[in-house]
Amino acid sequence: MDSFHPPNFDHVDDQMVKIEVNLDDMPGEWLGYVMDLLFNAGANDVFYTPIYMKKNRPGVLLQLLCAKKKLEEMERVLFTETTTLGVRYYPLTVHRIERSFQKVTTKWGDITIKEGQYNGQIVQRAPEYEDCKTIAKDHNVPLKKVYEEVWKQYRS
Amino acid sequence: MDSFHPPNFDHVDDQMVKIEVNLDDMPGEWLGYVMDLLFNAGANDVFYTPIYMKKNRPGVLLQLLCAKKKLEEMERVLFTETTTLGVRYYPLTVHRIERSFQKVTTKWGDITIKEGQYNGQIVQRAPEYEDCKTIAKDHNVPLKKVYEEVWKQYRS
Amino acid sequence: MDSFHPPNFDHVDDQMVKIEVNLDDMPGEWLGYVMDLLFNAGANDVFYTPIYMKKNRPGVLLQLLCAKKKLEEMERVLFTETTTLGVRYYPLTVHRIERSFQKVTTKWGDITIKEGQYNGQIVQRAPEYEDCKTIAKDHNVPLKKVYEEVWKQYRS
Amino acid sequence: MDSFHPPNFDHVDDQMVKIEVNLDDMPGEWLGYVMDLLFNAGANDVFYTPIYMKKNRPGVLLQLLCAKKKLEEMERVLFTETTTLGVRYYPLTVHRIERSFQKVTTKWGDITIKEGQYNGQIVQRAPEYEDCKTIAKDHNVPLKKVYEEVWKQYRS
Amino acid sequence: MDSFHPPNFDHVDDQMVKIEVNLDDMPGEWLGYVMDLLFNAGANDVFYTPIYMKKNRPGVLLQLLCAKKKLEEMERVLFTETTTLGVRYYPLTVHRIERSFQKVTTKWGDITIKEGQYNGQIVQRAPEYEDCKTIAKDHNVPLKKVYEEVWKQYRS
Amino acid sequence: MDSFHPPNFDHVDDQMVKIEVNLDDMPGEWLGYVMDLLFNAGANDVFYTPIYMKKNRPGVLLQLLCAKKKLEEMERVLFTETTTLGVRYYPLTVHRIERSFQKVTTKWGDITIKEGQYNGQIVQRAPEYEDCKTIAKDHNVPLKKVYEEVWKQYRS
Repeated sequence: MDSFHPPNFDHVDDQMVKIEVNLDDMPGEWLGYVMDLLFNAGANDVFYTPIYMKKNRPGVLLQLLCAKKKLEEMERVLFTETTTLGVRYYPLTVHRIERSFQKVTTKWGDITIKEGQYNGQIVQRAPEYEDCKTIAKDHNVPLKKVYEEVWKQYRS
Repeated sequence: MDSFHPPNFDHVDDQMVKIEVNLDDMPGEWLGYVMDLLFNAGANDVFYTPIYMKKNRPGVLLQLLCAKKKLEEMERVLFTETTTLGVRYYPLTVHRIERSFQKVTTKWGDITIKEGQYNGQIVQRAPEYEDCKTIAKDHNVPLKKVYEEVWKQYRS
Repeated sequence: MDSFHPPNFDHVDDQMVKIEVNLDDMPGEWLGYVMDLLFNAGANDVFYTPIYMKKNRPGVLLQLLCAKKKLEEMERVLFTETTTLGVRYYPLTVHRIERSFQKVTTKWGDITIKEGQYNGQIVQRAPEYEDCKTIAKDHNVPLKKVYEEVWKQYRS
Repeated sequence: MDSFHPPNFDHVDDQMVKIEVNLDDMPGEWLGYVMDLLFNAGANDVFYTPIYMKKNRPGVLLQLLCAKKKLEEMERVLFTETTTLGVRYYPLTVHRIERSFQKVTTKWGDITIKEGQYNGQIVQRAPEYEDCKTIAKDHNVPLKKVYEEVWKQYRS
Repeated sequence: MDSFHPPNFDHVDDQMVKIEVNLDDMPGEWLGYVMDLLFNAGANDVFYTPIYMKKNRPGVLLQLLCAKKKLEEMERVLFTETTTLGVRYYPLTVHRIERSFQKVTTKWGDITIKEGQYNGQIVQRAPEYEDCKTIAKDHNVPLKKVYEEVWKQYRS
Repeated sequence: MDSFHPPNFDHVDDQMVKIEVNLDDMPGEWLGYVMDLLFNAGANDVFYTPIYMKKNRPGVLLQLLCAKKKLEEMERVLFTETTTLGVRYYPLTVHRIERSFQKVTTKWGDITIKEGQYNGQIVQRAPEYEDCKTIAKDHNVPLKKVYEEVWKQYRS
C-alpha cells in the first residue's frame, strides 16, 4: 500500500485528476470489493452514483480522485477488476485547508478531533469516526452519545 | 401476452399486490430485459430504485404492482430471470379515477388525450406519449413542440 | 390548514396510511410546489425517491404518510395537482416515543430541544432546526456552530 | 447579495468553474440551508446528488456552478458552513442561448414567458414558475392548469 | 448475536415485517455504523434509499426486514442509535425458494454455490461472495476471474 | 446516422468532451426520447443522474460524452429537444484498451464476445448483450442461463 497523503497545511494542489467509469454489466456485489482495492492502491476518494443508462439499465457511475502520478495504477485496477473497456479522466484542482489535531478527553477515553483552519480561524472540528466507533463498541454506548460528549468536552 | 387491464370508470381496487426484490448480484444490463418480461407477463407497473446495501454495494430495489391473481406468474419470472432466492409482497389498494379519451387534431395528425375525471370534473389531460412520439419522428418536429401544439388545440 | 398532530406521549398509532404515486409525465418544478400543498393539507410526511421507469424514463416516486381519515383530502390534492390517474395506499403502524421539550440558553438566545424518551431514558435530543437557523441568520454565525454551542450548553 | 447574471444574448462563457464537495459527516437538514447561502452568495446553480461512500455511508455530492471570480466567495461559504476540509474545482464552458421575454395574458393575470433563441429560431418557451405559482395560489387553481392555460394563450 | 435464519426449504413466511425510518438530521457516517448494528441484532436485510425531503433536504430512507418477533429489538436499536422519534412498520409475506449447497473445485480452492430450486428445477446458482473474495485476495486474482472460473467448472 | 466509432486498438483520445445539462422543468417521459435522439446523433454515451435542485425540485442531470467535433450537433439536439437555455461542457481524455472479438458456440447458436486487452493480457470478456438477448427470446431460455452457458463454453 502506497497511498498518497496530502500535506496538513493550507495548499492548492493542481496535480489531481478525476477518473470516471460507467458500469452496467457488473453486479453491485463486486463494486463493494473494487472500492477497497482502489483505496488500497492510493485513491484519495472513491464513490458511486446511481445512473440511468440506455436500454432501461440502472447503472453505476464510479468516480475516483487521485494524484496524477497515480493514474496508471488506478487504470490497472479498473481494467483488471471492473468490466470496463475504457476510462475517462480530467484534471482538477483541490484546495485543502490547514489541518491540526487535538485530543478531547471523555469519560470513556481520548478522541482525536481534526481541526480545519481557514483565514486564520478554526472552521472545522471533526471528531475521528474510528475513535468514536471504538469507544461506542467497547463501552456499549450509542455512537451519537459519544459525539454529543465530544462536543460537550471540546475546549471547555 | 395476457396483461391485466383495470376498468375505465372510477373504482377502488383492493385486489392488488406490491412485490419487492433487492438485487445486488446481477448486472444492470439484465435488469432492462427483466422489466420488459414483467410487463409482458402482466405487471401493471415495474420500476427500480437505487439502494445502498451491506458491504458497500450499490444495489437495486425492484418493485412491481400487479393483480393478486398474477402473483404466481410474477414469481415465476422473478425466480427464473433474476438472481433472487426470495420475493416479498404485501397487499395494497388502488384508487383509479374515471378515464375517457378524446382526439385532438393538430396540423400533423390526430393525438389521443387520456382524460381523468374526479368528483365530476376533468382533472387530468394526458396526451398519449406514443402518438406524440410518432408524429415527432414522422414530421421531424421536436417532441416538446408536439405537446405545446396539443395544448393549444385542446378543446379550443 | 388543519394538519394532524400526534400526541406527545409514547403511543402506537395503527390508523396511519402510506400513499404512493409514480410520476413520469410531470416536471420536477411542479413537484416542489405539490410537496408544500400536501403538507398544508395535513400530511405527516411527504418525500420523493428517484425511480427508473419503463422506456428509459427517470421518474419520481411520491410517498406520503397521513392519518387514515386524511386519505380523501390527500387524494383530492394528488388528483388535482399531479398528473396521476391512480393512487395506491396501504395501512401501516407508527410507534412514536414520548416527546418533551427543553430550552437551552446560548449566548445568542434560547433554543428548544425536542427530547425523546424510550424505556424510561432520554434517547433523542434534537435541537429545533428553525430556532438554530434563525439565530444563525440573525447573528451571522455558521449554522453548525450554533449546533455545537447547543451541545456544549445542553444540561451542563 | 451580489449574484452574477449572465447577459441575455447568445454567448459562450469560458470563465465558469464547477466546484464539488463530498459530504458524509453532515446532516441533510443543514444542506437545505447551505444551498440558500450559496445561491445568495452568487452561485449560478447548486445541486446535490446521492453518492455511495466508503464504510457503507450514504453521502451527498454538492456541485455548484459559478463565475471564476466567485471562487473565493464560494469557498468561504463551503469551509464555514459545511464540514469539508477540501474543495475541488475545474473550469468549464457554458453556452447560453439568446433570451427574450414575452407576456402572456390569461384570465387570471399576466405571466412572463422566457423565450430562448437558437440559430434564428425560438426553441424554448418557459413560463416563469414564480408567476404561475402566484396565480395558482391567489386564484386557488391547480398549478398545472395555469401552465395549460399559458400554452393555450401563447401567441394564438 | 441472535440473528434469525429462515429454513432452507421452499416456504411462505407470513411473520415478517418491514420497518421504515426517514432520516434527515443524522450524518451518513453514522448510518454505516447503524447498518452493522441492525444486522447484528437480527435483521434479515437493511438498506438505504436517497429521498428528497422538505426544505430542500437530501435525506435517507432506512428500510429493514425482520421477523415480527424481532420488532422490539429493532426498535431499541433504531431509537437509541438513530435520531428518529418514530418508526413505522407493516407486515409482509416472504416467499423463499428451496436452497441447497454445492462445492465447486477451482485451481485455487473450493467455492460454495448456493442453489435455488423452483418448481422442481434449479433456477439460481450463486457463488458465495466471501469464498470468491478470499480466493481473489489470497491468490491475487481479479474477483471477476474467480467467478468466471466458477462458471466454467460448475457441474461440467 | 453518423455516429462516431473509436478505433479498436489501445489509444488515448484527448478529443472528447463531456456535456452537462440540469433539467427540472421537463417530464421524465420526454427524457427517454431525448436519450435515443442523442445516441442517434452520435453521442458515445448518454446517462441521467437524479439531482436535488432548489425549491425542493427533484431534477435530472443529463450527461453525455462525445467527440469535440460533435459538440455543435449535440447542442442542436439539446436546445431543440430539451427545455434548457444553456449547456456546459469540459474536455476530457478517454483511454480505451484494445478490443478484439471472438465467437463462442453454444447449443443455441453463436455469441460474440468482446475481449479487452491491457498490458498484453486479456482482461475483459464481455458477451454481446444483443446476441444473448436474441437467443434468450428465440429459445425461451432465461437470459442469465445464456450468460452462464457462454462462460462454460468460452475457450474451453
